[in-house]
Parts: sequence; structure tokens; C-alpha cells
Amino acid sequence: MANCRWQYSTRAILMKSSIIRDTLKITQKPGVIGFGGGLPAPELFPSEELAECAKKVIMEKPAEALQYSTTEGYVKLRELIAERMAKIGVRCDPDQIMITGGSQQGLDLTGRVFLDTDVFVVCGVPTYLGAIQAFNAYIPKYLTLASDENGMTIDGLEEYLKKYSPRLIYVVPTFQNPDGLTISEERRKAIVELGEKYHVPVIEDDPYSELCFEGTVPPHMQSMNPDGVILLGTFSKLLAPGFRVAWVIAPKGECFDRFVKMKQGADLQTNTLSQYIIYEYLKTGALDKHLAKVAKVYSKRRDLMVKAMHKYFPKGVKFTEPKGGLFLWVELPEGLNATELLPKAVERKVGYIPGEAFNPNGGGENTMRLNFSKSSEEEIEEGIKRLGEVFAEALKR
Amino acid sequence: MANCRWQYSTRAILMKSSIIRDTLKITQKPGVIGFGGGLPAPELFPSEELAECAKKVIMEKPAEALQYSTTEGYVKLRELIAERMAKIGVRCDPDQIMITGGSQQGLDLTGRVFLDTDVFVVCGVPTYLGAIQAFNAYIPKYLTLASDENGMTIDGLEEYLKKYSPRLIYVVPTFQNPDGLTISEERRKAIVELGEKYHVPVIEDDPYSELCFEGTVPPHMQSMNPDGVILLGTFSKLLAPGFRVAWVIAPKGECFDRFVKMKQGADLQTNTLSQYIIYEYLKTGALDKHLAKVAKVYSKRRDLMVKAMHKYFPKGVKFTEPKGGLFLWVELPEGLNATELLPKAVERKVGYIPGEAFNPNGGGENTMRLNFSKSSEEEIEEGIKRLGEVFAEALKR
Repeated sequence: MANCRWQYSTRAILMKSSIIRDTLKITQKPGVIGFGGGLPAPELFPSEELAECAKKVIMEKPAEALQYSTTEGYVKLRELIAERMAKIGVRCDPDQIMITGGSQQGLDLTGRVFLDTDVFVVCGVPTYLGAIQAFNAYIPKYLTLASDENGMTIDGLEEYLKKYSPRLIYVVPTFQNPDGLTISEERRKAIVELGEKYHVPVIEDDPYSELCFEGTVPPHMQSMNPDGVILLGTFSKLLAPGFRVAWVIAPKGECFDRFVKMKQGADLQTNTLSQYIIYEYLKTGALDKHLAKVAKVYSKRRDLMVKAMHKYFPKGVKFTEPKGGLFLWVELPEGLNATELLPKAVERKVGYIPGEAFNPNGGGENTMRLNFSKSSEEEIEEGIKRLGEVFAEALKR
Repeated sequence: MANCRWQYSTRAILMKSSIIRDTLKITQKPGVIGFGGGLPAPELFPSEELAECAKKVIMEKPAEALQYSTTEGYVKLRELIAERMAKIGVRCDPDQIMITGGSQQGLDLTGRVFLDTDVFVVCGVPTYLGAIQAFNAYIPKYLTLASDENGMTIDGLEEYLKKYSPRLIYVVPTFQNPDGLTISEERRKAIVELGEKYHVPVIEDDPYSELCFEGTVPPHMQSMNPDGVILLGTFSKLLAPGFRVAWVIAPKGECFDRFVKMKQGADLQTNTLSQYIIYEYLKTGALDKHLAKVAKVYSKRRDLMVKAMHKYFPKGVKFTEPKGGLFLWVELPEGLNATELLPKAVERKVGYIPGEAFNPNGGGENTMRLNFSKSSEEEIEEGIKRLGEVFAEALKR
């Protein structure tokens, strides 16, 4: 086979497959209750409305909706996004919004714009695995900060910024994937100020803040310093992930222009049709009502999961109780290893993602991520019960 | 502005904007006849059929068509692509086909899998600009081979392979963008054999071979050595570019797996909905009939353009007469500069892409690319007439 003798890039040789996708291959089997994925509940997709929007834009505007478009994205969609963003305090013009192929592409382009081999990225642990995977294509090193109940802590952040001149500070400040935690307003301000002081951009990855079940979320970090923060938003969790339509909001000028140039080379532009369909759907004003419905369902599922965890998990197993988003985080007593326990869980037909994957420098062996948005109420009760049994058994040994 | 003091990546600092996209900003003005873009004719999009397919898949399969899917792509679509490919002599299984976000992403992933800073890429001149832009994100160097009426020549290729151990040989063998030329069967064989001999993959970028107006196209290079060639195909020119659905066919094992890992980090997966819509459309069997219609229209437009060029272009201006695809290539007498003439052309309300952009190491100042698929018959006659006037005037000075 000729291709075994080919010379591959350094990054290709270093790059591992996504643990999430690989784990899903094991856990996504018929009959296995899946807490592993990060899937929105498909029964909530507003499919009738979206089908109408799809038909309408193709019939009425085929020459635009099916054709090449600009790298920045469909201007009317960008205008509506800017309007929505303004309502939640984010300050931006449509011409600093670029549409991306999911937020995963936003993360990849962030890496492309800022990272070189062996430069530093600051992030919390645990942090979003997809970000690590995107950044790893550019072979950086990671400086990590521990988390407490208010999300990523900032002890040591200034030291990192002074000593290592990192290229970016990456945060998922609201209902973070994987742990569901939210960074407090005070801490957000401190991070933004330090980024400004040391000339390091803050990447605010924000897929979940509009999926808030109770109370309010702290102000966006972008709103605290629009010129110092790059915000990533997405329709994947608000509407449907199959569209792969998300956005980057970057400061005007040099920074925004570099994102556009990088996207030109990466894939020219995001799917035109999906941008038109989403615009058509947003125009009807139905999204807010849809989001309220989604939040209500997810909130109930979180309640059920948390209640079941209190009921079935052995003493010594800790977990977060997030106020929004799709995920919660389980910490097993020291000495237990969630990766090693996974086959036992799959035997009992329940799946999760081991927490190690969310630690770029290793660690977190006794942690795991659970998703509560996708499973039915019965599955949640039964799945948590089975997990509790797996943990109890492991603790006995 | 904080973002001006940020540290960007080396590639971001080196990366130029796409000359095509920038030129289009100048030339895409009301009343300007546009030979610059590479747009399929939108009036030929099978919009009614596609609207029905879109509505159908969203209504009948919302939980799949709107949800996350696999990185490799929708398996049924990959099966149909494998069947279509078999008909044109390409030998592949569905599990060596990965769906990409346009062929531009296929090119980017090719760069990601194979290229490091300062390694070498072999290509013809002129060559496809989008490939140069995609590869440039990985900062390679280019070894170029001149073209004759049979496309990229091979004098010097073995020398390059021996001396520089390039990471890949990039070719658009059929109806190449930008010059419309096709590499002969004999030369294809020689390139494939040399790639095999020196363990260098051949990247066969093939967006146009199914848009053949007359005669037959030589066999695909992939069919000559499936383990030595990576093939890029796309629906952008066959159906509609707004879907951003294309595919990479790579040898099984190490090579294919690396493409998948790189795509995971880049954007997780290609738009699910568009994959389902295209599958639904292909299933009806309508594509071949549609392609015959498209080829007929484009063929007529090419005829008109070539005829007008014979009529209106001053002596000494040469041009190709492609047997398929979307583009032809104009060579002005030495000393004339197509970039410098562009403002004069735009004054007369006609646009093109200067040829320099298609030369990764510079050169080609007296050349330009013209697109014949998008303009109406009247526009072609009138636009070529105006260009002839611009050339005649430039020659007088």
C-alpha cells in the first residue's frame, strides 16, 4: 500500500481521534442508554416550520440560496444575529459577525489565526474537548487553571500571562461543556481585565447561555470589553445542529479580517441554503418561544437526573447541578477510573464520556460527563440507577 | 484597540486574501458583465425538485436530517457516490469516501494531513488558486511545471521528486480551473507512476470531468492506482454550490483515518441536512439528465465565447478552447499586464480574473481567466467585444 509510505504532516502524526466520537461508537448501540453524546433532543426540532422555510427559500430564491455566497455569510442573517446579540448585551455590528460551519469551525479558525507550534493557550480544567482538538492541529501547549463552583478559577492567571505570553485565554463561561458550571460576574471581569492588560484575546465560547433554566446568567464577557473578546455563538443547541451554522464575533479591523481570510482558505463559505433557512425561521420570531419550550424540557430532565443521582449514587460520588445547558459532571472518589469503568457501564447498557478527555494536560481520571438533554425520563431514571450500581460495585473492590 | 496588539500566528501574518474574492468585489457591480466568478448558471438549478426533497427529508426524518451525524458523512450518500464513481472507472468503497464542506475543505484537509512549513508541493502553472490558498495555511513551497495543450507537462517532475521529496503532487487533470485544459492519458499514467515510485501522493482534484461537452475524458488517475491517488469530487458544479457538499476518496487505513481525524477537529462534520437533500435527489436518478442539460447550455456558451473571441480579440491574443468545464484562459502578448488592465475593463463594465493569482511563485502577468457558464448569450458577445476593445487600446500604447 503506497499510502503507508507517504510522509504525513507533524500534526497528522500527533493528532488523536476525538475520544467523544470514539466513545460514541462503543456506546451508541441499540438498547444502550446514552448519556455520552451532546445531542439536543430531536423530538423538539421545529421540523414542520423548518420544512416550510426550506421549501420557501429554495422555491423563491434558488439563484441565491443554492449559489455561492460570501465568506462572511448571508448579510441578512448576520443582521438578525446582531439584533439578537444586542438583546443579551453583546455589542457588535453585523460586519464583525462571520458565519462558521458550527462553532467547531470557529474554534479551528481561532487556532489558525492565533496559534503556532509550542505557543501557549490558557484554559480551565475541565474544558471543552472540541476546543482542545481544534487547537491541537496547531500544536500549542496548555496552561490550565482549576475549577471551583464558580467555574474556572483565576489564581495563577496573571502569572501565566506575565511568564508565558500565551496567545489566547479560552473559556466557556456559561453552563460549560463538560461540567455545566458558570463563571461568576466578578471573575469574568477579572479575566477580561487581565486579557486587556497583557494583550491576550479572551475567547468566549458561548453555545449554552440561552438555555437557562432558572435565574439569570452573568453578563457576557464580550460586553465587558468588545475589543478584547472574541465570542463564538451557534444555532446547534438553539435550533438544530444538522445545519452547522454558527458565528464568530471578532473585533473589527485586523482581527476580523484575519478570520475571514482563514475561512476563505478553509472552505470558502458556510452552507448557503442553511443560512437562508435559518434566516427565514428567525424572521418569523418563533425562536424565543421554541427556546422556552426546550429549556422547560431540559430543565425537567436535569431535575430528574439530579434527583436520581441523589437517590442511586453511592456516598462519596459528587456531581454538579447546573442551572442550564446540556451537561453535568460527576466526580468519583479518588482511585476510581472512569475510563476503566466504561466497559462495565456499557455491559449494563449505559454510556458516558470519561472526564480525562477534557483535561489537555492529563488528569481527571475519576471524572465523567453526563448529558441530560437527549434521554427520555424513563431512560434517565434507569440509566442513573445502573451507573449507581457500577459505582457501588467498583467501590467495593 | 486591543486586537491590534495581539500576537497572531505566522500563517495569519503571511496569508493574503483571495484575489478571486477581492476581484469579485470590484467586478460584481450592477451592469458589469462578469466573466470573473466561477459560478454555475443559477437558472439551471433544479429548484423545484430540490425544494421537494428538502421538505420531504425534514418532514420525514427530522431526527436524523437536522441532528449531528458522523464525521465521515451520511452513509447512504457515500454509497451512492461510490456507485456513481464506479460508473466512471473510479475504484472505491463507501468507507473510503469522506464528505467535505466543498472541495475547498478537501484541499484544506489535504494540506493539514500532508504539509508542514517549508515542505514542497508540486503543481502545474497555472493551477487552481483555491488550492494554493488552502495549502498556504500550512506554509509550503511550490515546485511548478509548465503547461502545454495537454495540460501540466512532466519535464522535470522526476527531478523534483528525487531532489525535494515533495509531500504531494497536485493536479486538476480535467478541464482545469483556470485554463480548461485536460492532461492526456499518457501523461496521467506517467505522473501516477512517478508518484508511486517516489512515494508521493497524487491529489486528483476533479470538479469538472462530468461537465464534458464533446468527446470523452481520459481515465481518472485514481483508476490507474487507487492506492496512490487521493481524489476530490464535488456536487458544487454538478448540482449547486450552496450545499457545500463534496467528497474526498482516500486510500483505506492510515491515509483515510488521518483525513477523518483532521475533519473532526476542523468542523466535526459536514451539514447533515444538505447531505440528506442531495441523497434524496440522487435517488430519483435525475442527476444525469440534469447534467446533460447543463453541459448543453455551457457548451453553447463556450461556443459563443470562442466565436466572439475569434471575432473581436486583436491578433496576438491567444486563448484555449476547452471541451468542458466552466473556464477558458487568455494569453495577451508579452508586456501586457492583465492586473493593470482590469480597471480599464471594469470601466467598460466587464470583469475577469487576472492570471497572476494562479501562479504560486509569480508570473503569468499577461494572462487571465474567463468564465463562460454564468453569463447570458448577449452578455458573452457584448463582454468579449468590450474586452477586445480594451486589449486593442492597450496594444496601441
